Amino acid sequence: MAMTGFTATDHAHMARALRLAERGAYTTKPNPMVGCVIAHGDEVVGEGWHERAGEPHAEVHALRAAGERARGATAYVTLEPCAHTGRTGPCSQALIAGGVARVVAAMRDPFPQVDGAGFAQLQAAGIAVSSGLMEAQARALNRGFLSRVERGRPWLRVKLATSIDGRSALASGESKWISGEASRLDVQRWRARAGAIVTGAGTVLADDPSLTVRLGDDTPFVAPLRVVLDPGLATVARGRVREGDAPTLYLHAPDAKPPRGLDAQHAAVSLREGRFDLGAVLRLLAERGVNEIQLEAGATLAGAFLAEGLVDEVLLYVAPVLLGGDARPLFDGLQIEAMTQKLALDIVESRRIGEDVRLLLRPGTKS
Amino acid sequence: MAMTGFTATDHAHMARALRLAERGAYTTKPNPMVGCVIAHGDEVVGEGWHERAGEPHAEVHALRAAGERARGATAYVTLEPCAHTGRTGPCSQALIAGGVARVVAAMRDPFPQVDGAGFAQLQAAGIAVSSGLMEAQARALNRGFLSRVERGRPWLRVKLATSIDGRSALASGESKWISGEASRLDVQRWRARAGAIVTGAGTVLADDPSLTVRLGDDTPFVAPLRVVLDPGLATVARGRVREGDAPTLYLHAPDAKPPRGLDAQHAAVSLREGRFDLGAVLRLLAERGVNEIQLEAGATLAGAFLAEGLVDEVLLYVAPVLLGGDARPLFDGLQIEAMTQKLALDIVESRRIGEDVRLLLRPGTKS
Repeated sequence: MAMTGFTATDHAHMARALRLAERGAYTTKPNPMVGCVIAHGDEVVGEGWHERAGEPHAEVHALRAAGERARGATAYVTLEPCAHTGRTGPCSQALIAGGVARVVAAMRDPFPQVDGAGFAQLQAAGIAVSSGLMEAQARALNRGFLSRVERGRPWLRVKLATSIDGRSALASGESKWISGEASRLDVQRWRARAGAIVTGAGTVLADDPSLTVRLGDDTPFVAPLRVVLDPGLATVARGRVREGDAPTLYLHAPDAKPPRGLDAQHAAVSLREGRFDLGAVLRLLAERGVNEIQLEAGATLAGAFLAEGLVDEVLLYVAPVLLGGDARPLFDGLQIEAMTQKLALDIVESRRIGEDVRLLLRPGTKS
Repeated sequence: MAMTGFTATDHAHMARALRLAERGAYTTKPNPMVGCVIAHGDEVVGEGWHERAGEPHAEVHALRAAGERARGATAYVTLEPCAHTGRTGPCSQALIAGGVARVVAAMRDPFPQVDGAGFAQLQAAGIAVSSGLMEAQARALNRGFLSRVERGRPWLRVKLATSIDGRSALASGESKWISGEASRLDVQRWRARAGAIVTGAGTVLADDPSLTVRLGDDTPFVAPLRVVLDPGLATVARGRVREGDAPTLYLHAPDAKPPRGLDAQHAAVSLREGRFDLGAVLRLLAERGVNEIQLEAGATLAGAFLAEGLVDEVLLYVAPVLLGGDARPLFDGLQIEAMTQKLALDIVESRRIGEDVRLLLRPGTKS
């Protein structure tokens, strides 16, 4: 299977397919985002993207749009076509039936029921198959899905906001007092991508966040699962996190007793030294199909995920405010010593969002 | 005097003159930065910029370069030509003697010994004078000088650094542990612009900073005055702030007794309710010719300047590090209440500096 020798035309079509795929960012979960472009040379004859789990895949949409013109064409797909019959038929068979002559994929699908079988079926049917075109972009697009399939845990994003004099709000309820309106809307878009928004009982008690997605328009999205880590189930009786249409899941200690008639989902997670086994929390959410987690919690919970090396991404809103009056030195001798163990990240992107600056960071390659 | 009707050629020459002026950023203090371009239409016949107080002004350099070609030309100056004999002769007379036909200035010089007198002398000699071309840029360039002349106090910049989880280092000694190498060099350039680097006794005791300019190359600069606010003169006996060639000034309470043989400058500043009168501190430094202050101090002193509305600019380095282990919630109920009195700023510029992001902020127009 060819891995190199892609032309500028190939790149252009795959770039388009990636943009199409991203349209499913709020709706395909737990499925990966996939885009497909069918073309003869420069001429595009069909396009499609996977919109929603249970509905047709990208290839099927593109084949329908292309009709007879798919014969002899090249299909560009951002992920290996599926080879199995899930809620829809296998895309490899649809591409064969459509008569395409060549399939170019950005990457192999590591999902166990695909994992090369899609390519094999296409090749067995005499279709030229190549993979690896713009693979880095395709992996970045589906970092949540890939994390779940390859690592058995969701991609974990920590959202936080800080004032410039170092007042940090790790919880959503607090951050609304810090960051600007544009940032607060931006946070909603990141929530919409997530399969779960995770918080702790302390944040529920202190801030009573709803943890819903409020995009402010009619953009469709699949509501993320709201997850409260509440060892003793102390917060289940009330709270905005229980209101609205989005599902809510309480994770509790094995010895906690869910109250009779609790109408929210709940599940026990094992403890280690009196605290939640965070690896087990993530495995449980992966098993429930969560690709991306957005953690909007207090410093204790966020710090615990950080300390265990389970954070993949930090979304930081820096708001140009000073909280002056209460300012006090944040470092003393002990803390300066602690700085030698600082956790280094890389700034992947910095962008102005309204009056704030948004930084996206990932664990760094150096310390 | 014409204030409008500038041509594209006029703009181009003034933009060049502003760039020339900025070359003096590290050396002209306490004088303003000034640039001059002499041109016939598009053709530049002479350029100059003010390099160092006591040395020739921009106009003189440009006139020397132009020689006889200055006759009938237009002189573009970023500040009204001086009309008085200071350490050098008046530039207005030099321009008249040089035979220029027209003078275009970016702005009037508010310095009491000029303040329109330069323009008046030129006009009296039959030279066409216009002012106001790119005035906003010219004012921004000399915001330190203008602050001293117009407000009687230096422009005050607070430099700070923060980790992304809200650990803020307001003092130089601490921040070196947070921000990257590129940011630390960048700080040196901002120091080189300053007429004074101000800190408090607490920072001297805790971090022992040298507060010198270390540009890492042979770029010339005039060393800023190092100023320590030390009410009881508790730190004068020692410290790196006393070492090296840069002058050091201790500001102390009126009742403090400078030790015999103290070989550093010292001056008393009045107190208000047991703390330094910060307005008096700034007036004293303005009287000593300080245009720009860079405050590199702890949270108490920085907070005090902030609380009194004396901060003009915040230079913030956001370093992509997490200090995890010691993380604790930075807000409790009381602090959230305090956030309603938050001080709003505007982000004037955000820029990547090595692995960090640098924000430049100024007091905002809204709260």
